[in-house]
Amino acid sequence: MTIASNLFVDIPPDLPDELFTTLLDAAEIRIERIVSHGHASRWFDQDQHEWVVVLKGAARLRFEDETVEMKPGDFMNIPAHKRHRVEWTTPDEPTVWLAVFYKTWRRDAL
Amino acid sequence: MTIASNLFVDIPPDLPDELFTTLLDAAEIRIERIVSHGHASRWFDQDQHEWVVVLKGAARLRFEDETVEMKPGDFMNIPAHKRHRVEWTTPDEPTVWLAVFYKTWRRDAL
Repeated sequence: MTIASNLFVDIPPDLPDELFTTLLDAAEIRIERIVSHGHASRWFDQDQHEWVVVLKGAARLRFEDETVEMKPGDFMNIPAHKRHRVEWTTPDEPTVWLAVFYKTWRRDAL
Repeated sequence: MTIASNLFVDIPPDLPDELFTTLLDAAEIRIERIVSHGHASRWFDQDQHEWVVVLKGAARLRFEDETVEMKPGDFMNIPAHKRHRVEWTTPDEPTVWLAVFYKTWRRDAL
């Protein structure tokens, strides 16, 4: 029997910086686990679209025109070049994100 | 403030069949939530690769040569045309899967 890998293991107790782990690196997509623990981030302006979900913890994303509170299970799609940053993550526990980066949004663009 | 969508809401108490909800339908990828509640499935032989994670509940996947037990956080990549089926999901609670279907595995194939 094969043992599957798990999103919630191998989280160091001390995280001086956010921890980025690539789970899948394929031609069109990249799947990352991101672990934050009280971290905020710089502003991102990405060439790829990002579908992101919070699986544990709590976070607040800031966009130029709004903020979005994220709790476990909350997901959203961030189009390429929509500027955003992580404004806050809870200091109480690690916040685990799953992010799917992909290149082409419109099906009819292919 | 925008409210994000959530993976763990809108789960009907009675599920005669597995519930498939498309969360993102882009050019190269499709992201689905799948809710099982004691269900097994037919065999699948898919044209697309599938990266899948169990977020709640418990499940067992069967491949032609092995089985894989899945608990929350467990993930695996199922290459296209690797035959598989859901052999078992727990009857105790809904099992929530997140599946990312994508077309091209090798980065150098583009």
